[in-house]
Amino acid sequence: MKPVIVLQTDFSETGSAVAVMKGVIKRVDPTLESEDLCHVIRKFDPFEASLSLARTVPYWPEGTVFVSVVDPGVGTSRKACIAKLKTGSYVITPDNGTLTHLKHEPGISSVRELDPVLCRYPGNEEVSVFHGRDIFAYTAALLASGKIPYTRLGKKYPAEEVIECEEYHRKPELSLSHVKGFLLTGSNHFGGVVMNILNAEFDQCGFAEGDVCRIRITHEGKTVFDEKVPYEKSFGYVKKGAPVLYKGSGKYISLDCNQDHFMNRYGIGFGLDWEAEIWK
Amino acid sequence: MKPVIVLQTDFSETGSAVAVMKGVIKRVDPTLESEDLCHVIRKFDPFEASLSLARTVPYWPEGTVFVSVVDPGVGTSRKACIAKLKTGSYVITPDNGTLTHLKHEPGISSVRELDPVLCRYPGNEEVSVFHGRDIFAYTAALLASGKIPYTRLGKKYPAEEVIECEEYHRKPELSLSHVKGFLLTGSNHFGGVVMNILNAEFDQCGFAEGDVCRIRITHEGKTVFDEKVPYEKSFGYVKKGAPVLYKGSGKYISLDCNQDHFMNRYGIGFGLDWEAEIWK
Amino acid sequence: MKPVIVLQTDFSETGSAVAVMKGVIKRVDPTLESEDLCHVIRKFDPFEASLSLARTVPYWPEGTVFVSVVDPGVGTSRKACIAKLKTGSYVITPDNGTLTHLKHEPGISSVRELDPVLCRYPGNEEVSVFHGRDIFAYTAALLASGKIPYTRLGKKYPAEEVIECEEYHRKPELSLSHVKGFLLTGSNHFGGVVMNILNAEFDQCGFAEGDVCRIRITHEGKTVFDEKVPYEKSFGYVKKGAPVLYKGSGKYISLDCNQDHFMNRYGIGFGLDWEAEIWK
Repeated sequence: MKPVIVLQTDFSETGSAVAVMKGVIKRVDPTLESEDLCHVIRKFDPFEASLSLARTVPYWPEGTVFVSVVDPGVGTSRKACIAKLKTGSYVITPDNGTLTHLKHEPGISSVRELDPVLCRYPGNEEVSVFHGRDIFAYTAALLASGKIPYTRLGKKYPAEEVIECEEYHRKPELSLSHVKGFLLTGSNHFGGVVMNILNAEFDQCGFAEGDVCRIRITHEGKTVFDEKVPYEKSFGYVKKGAPVLYKGSGKYISLDCNQDHFMNRYGIGFGLDWEAEIWK
Repeated sequence: MKPVIVLQTDFSETGSAVAVMKGVIKRVDPTLESEDLCHVIRKFDPFEASLSLARTVPYWPEGTVFVSVVDPGVGTSRKACIAKLKTGSYVITPDNGTLTHLKHEPGISSVRELDPVLCRYPGNEEVSVFHGRDIFAYTAALLASGKIPYTRLGKKYPAEEVIECEEYHRKPELSLSHVKGFLLTGSNHFGGVVMNILNAEFDQCGFAEGDVCRIRITHEGKTVFDEKVPYEKSFGYVKKGAPVLYKGSGKYISLDCNQDHFMNRYGIGFGLDWEAEIWK
Repeated sequence: MKPVIVLQTDFSETGSAVAVMKGVIKRVDPTLESEDLCHVIRKFDPFEASLSLARTVPYWPEGTVFVSVVDPGVGTSRKACIAKLKTGSYVITPDNGTLTHLKHEPGISSVRELDPVLCRYPGNEEVSVFHGRDIFAYTAALLASGKIPYTRLGKKYPAEEVIECEEYHRKPELSLSHVKGFLLTGSNHFGGVVMNILNAEFDQCGFAEGDVCRIRITHEGKTVFDEKVPYEKSFGYVKKGAPVLYKGSGKYISLDCNQDHFMNRYGIGFGLDWEAEIWK
């Protein structure tokens, strides 16, 4: 059975770009199946692309071919690459930070720079702004269909050279009954935020569900939120609208309101300049 | 041929949650196919989830496995269940009102509470906030793949106990040349509203296409709209921008403007506190 | 292998309409596969529908069955048709301008008005507002499944009669070192605009990547933008935020900012009343 191709972009679904990529895949081999990961990765943000892959890749079968096109450098000298993960899945992407998390977990077994001739859909040579169509989706189809094996898609280069986002390397402070980190990301839809502290790390610091914690969030040094918040299994353990701390589904400790939008309610964002501290 | 899995959530497609659910399904059985119903059901609103299923389920083949995750009580004591419909299709959902309409039409032939061990994707036991991934999608895949038959997914409980939304039980007043009901739902996209009166019921009250009706809409008792509106086959029978009453595609009598947004134009919403009355 | 069905609508994905169409297809033949082109074509705008098809159809296999439902005249006397393209692909759509571009390139080899009985999903005869479900998706499934051949779907009529949008016929002025046209469309997501001048036509007028051009955009005769803009291969050749002219992926010369939203930044829209002029 041929592997599935899973597509992630920052193109949105307001245009035809994603459908064009899927068409290219079908033209290479009509038996191939492509699925959507997410097409509203924050525009031009490889770190969000990396986080999104980290959350998703482990839940797909080994051997799946992921394509990620968050590519502010399209048509410039940034590398277009294919990484083979230690689990056997593949990621085809610009090498611009999108592989940050996967490089560390599960790890990259090898990476190749895509051959600019072999991996180029014939016919749009004059266009340099849509590598999602002309390179990334096309290469995924070549690989998934079995037309070109991984080892022939381009020259290997050292996996250590794969570019990483700086956000990944800002590590939290962890001690007994106190942690400090930053707000890694958030859900514009539901409104919760995610800290750069693993669920398991958090409990190792002595926190346990049922505790009431003090949480302080600062933005560029200014306190924006400073409240007692229960640490619970899920939203429904606090009353409607109230904030709650919980083990996030993406492995990181998370904060939201029960049936309300935490970020909107408290005027909170995320990123390196949003720090959070928790005391037991 | 294995049944299709059709997914409905209030997760939106701005994150990776839906793609993670689809991955879990493929990990159970890579030959399974999953499709999207809608992922922007109004957040935390089982009644909208129920309406959406009622409109969609009859148009899919018998035996289809629907998954609905509109689940404000995730991780609490609300039941996670699978209902077998009288048509032979299945719905896997929190038992929180999502099954309201289907319970009445086509009817539920039996319902089971999902076994918390068997129906749990292995590996995320510490997380209680993403049953879409860890329970609902996983169970759908177990069933659709044939790995676990329906009868072994959990203990039966009486179908009469399946929870219903109160909105369903607010019945309209129907008499000759006059009806009164409330605005069941609306389309934020196109702008039309839907009354809790079936197309067929409406005509049985003596209304016929070609009539000009008086329609009054009140919000918490205050009149917001009171106009003569033609009852026509479709939008194009009135001039651009004008309101029109018509037989809705979801079986309920509906009101919109021709190429304009009825709700925005007249400041109208929907729900139990939006009543509508129509005279011939 | 059966052809894929590719769906385009202005329904958005906020309701169940698209999923209902996909269900109807599966009910006709559960082995059929349907894919999404785009469901947020500007509401009621056949010209956008036509442009979107023109960009997408060439990237799908020959024989693909496209369904386009941008249909302000649903339920009125406008024709419901199926066009067979010269490449062998099919488009099922209201004949309302949606076929404008494809009629010229690759051309329509024949067109039929859908038989109102044969091409009607049984059971919703009283409803006239959802031909996407009751006619277009259903007909696509009949054809793609092989249940009814193309030649029996309805009566042929002359391809020359297929309705065209006027925008298509507003041709640009092309001369050495100077072109004048209008802004055909734009991306609300990324913010770029597209002129009605082909990449190839533009270069034939003596423009070459590396040039700095003067671009003036007027709205109803008033100048809204008048700047020197580099003509480059891609966004990354100018500094972040700066405007850049480039060969668009949909074959038309395009204008955007590097990692910024050109239309929002300069207050620019698109359509026949937005003219643009470029000097070398």
